[in-house]
Amino acid sequence: MKPPIVVALGGNAIVKPNQQGTYQEQLEAVQTACAAMAGLVAHGHSLVITHGNGPQVGNILIQQEEARLVVPPMPLDACGAQSQGLIGYMIQRTMDNELRRRGIERRVVSLVTQVLVDPDDPAYGNPTKPIGPYYTPDRAKSLLETRGYRMKEDSRRGWRRVVPSPEPLGIVESQAIRLLVEREMIIVALGGGGIPVARRPDGQIEGVEAVVDKDLAAQKLASEVGAWALMILTDVERVALNYGRPDQYDLETITLAEGRRHLAEGHFAAGSMRPKVEACLRFIEAGGPVAMIGPLDRAAQVLHGKAGTRFMAG
Amino acid sequence: MKPPIVVALGGNAIVKPNQQGTYQEQLEAVQTACAAMAGLVAHGHSLVITHGNGPQVGNILIQQEEARLVVPPMPLDACGAQSQGLIGYMIQRTMDNELRRRGIERRVVSLVTQVLVDPDDPAYGNPTKPIGPYYTPDRAKSLLETRGYRMKEDSRRGWRRVVPSPEPLGIVESQAIRLLVEREMIIVALGGGGIPVARRPDGQIEGVEAVVDKDLAAQKLASEVGAWALMILTDVERVALNYGRPDQYDLETITLAEGRRHLAEGHFAAGSMRPKVEACLRFIEAGGPVAMIGPLDRAAQVLHGKAGTRFMAG
Repeated sequence: MKPPIVVALGGNAIVKPNQQGTYQEQLEAVQTACAAMAGLVAHGHSLVITHGNGPQVGNILIQQEEARLVVPPMPLDACGAQSQGLIGYMIQRTMDNELRRRGIERRVVSLVTQVLVDPDDPAYGNPTKPIGPYYTPDRAKSLLETRGYRMKEDSRRGWRRVVPSPEPLGIVESQAIRLLVEREMIIVALGGGGIPVARRPDGQIEGVEAVVDKDLAAQKLASEVGAWALMILTDVERVALNYGRPDQYDLETITLAEGRRHLAEGHFAAGSMRPKVEACLRFIEAGGPVAMIGPLDRAAQVLHGKAGTRFMAG
Repeated sequence: MKPPIVVALGGNAIVKPNQQGTYQEQLEAVQTACAAMAGLVAHGHSLVITHGNGPQVGNILIQQEEARLVVPPMPLDACGAQSQGLIGYMIQRTMDNELRRRGIERRVVSLVTQVLVDPDDPAYGNPTKPIGPYYTPDRAKSLLETRGYRMKEDSRRGWRRVVPSPEPLGIVESQAIRLLVEREMIIVALGGGGIPVARRPDGQIEGVEAVVDKDLAAQKLASEVGAWALMILTDVERVALNYGRPDQYDLETITLAEGRRHLAEGHFAAGSMRPKVEACLRFIEAGGPVAMIGPLDRAAQVLHGKAGTRFMAG
């Protein structure tokens, strides 16, 4: 068996930006992603598949809001858990079918996954991550007063709830994930960056209403399970300097020192390429052999350095 | 390590019949159930915890219906997957805390679980399981026409969708569950009887809109993972003949032959005690050592034969 890879699927891998997110649309996108990832399994690797959940949690929050007079709404951590069940099921069934079609005998399972965060993370002072539906000013005011939601105005579409995005400290279920991946299973885990939980002074864990960056969380998991590679699959060709400008320069490889310098020079967009590059550098810094960022539809080429960008120690 | 027990939690273990199902209510009920089950772990057993999802899927279906003009509704299997994520998260976090409080070092994880059914199961000809909201006659007619739902009238509250309840043929993830339970982990699995899937002639599996009886599914899982015991925890004291009549007779033990005779004589209510007794008998018939039905709040006494009813070969 070849060593395991932790794959991080981009947000667009399951619901395209121009789609409403019908079940059929999501299944088709999952099918495309699974076909690409099965190419990695065909090369002998075990996979831990992590993924975003933004559109799915957004839909769950809208459904909760629309039905709030008849069904009691759940907090954000519980909605995240629902989305992990939904997306895990779609990926696990589709991947199982895709592997069977190729004659590959591997089991696929999904784990509900919690990510530990510090309840005193400075992110709590400055919530930045918008979630769920757009509200009218009146409804936004009422949610602030009744539920204590922090709300921010989006100039075009109304008011939205914002939650903090704390640092991932560790993955609660990494021991089970490591055990399954060592037995050559394909694991779907850490959906949406994981369900954020915090440890109280008495040692008990409780859910917190936050969103952990999914690429940073995937790095944490990759390091904890001793993955050979962290592979962030998205819709860009390569990581680029001066992105979108006439002097854009695509990078085939990035060393630790180069990556830290590029980050310090502000080359990568917050909430987009920056956390991906940061996750790759952290994986290498924690002793990981290699990290990659590249296009989902050519995952096997990314694996072999024929597409995407590779991160190495030096 | 003592051999694993597959526990089946009754529907009332998470949302009480008189409750709306707020998150706080559900967490409190889960806390009570976890305290009882931790008593089994304290005796050295590993557990696979299975559970119902009726109220949670009901709420998800109502939310989908209320928001249907803005968010595309998902099919029933996908809603079941959502409920597995939600309930799995609640149980896994609460159980983890409960074990830590008692100084017991065990990991707790939840798996999205699919149950295989026969697409030609005779249950498809006679859907009996009501799910989701009550509808007006007009809306029921429209759902029949637009989505092909089978609808039945409930004399008091309106129309409801009914789905088939096919037999469980096997649990797709039982190999992973067996692996984790052998490593002394506590596994939450098979929520709501599992997400029903059927294998097409080409070998691919696809979701089906059905509800598998959760006790019958738990038996299948218990036999497949080689459990020592199937323990169905509910709110009754013991299995009884002539239940609710002046000559009610509580049973401490039931042999295979006795159990089959009681069933044939029609002693147990369909959709209630009958599938529980059937599940216990099937577990023994498949070679399982012992099965039990008893009160959740005295799970450890049920384990030791001091409460509830025990099923044995003879």
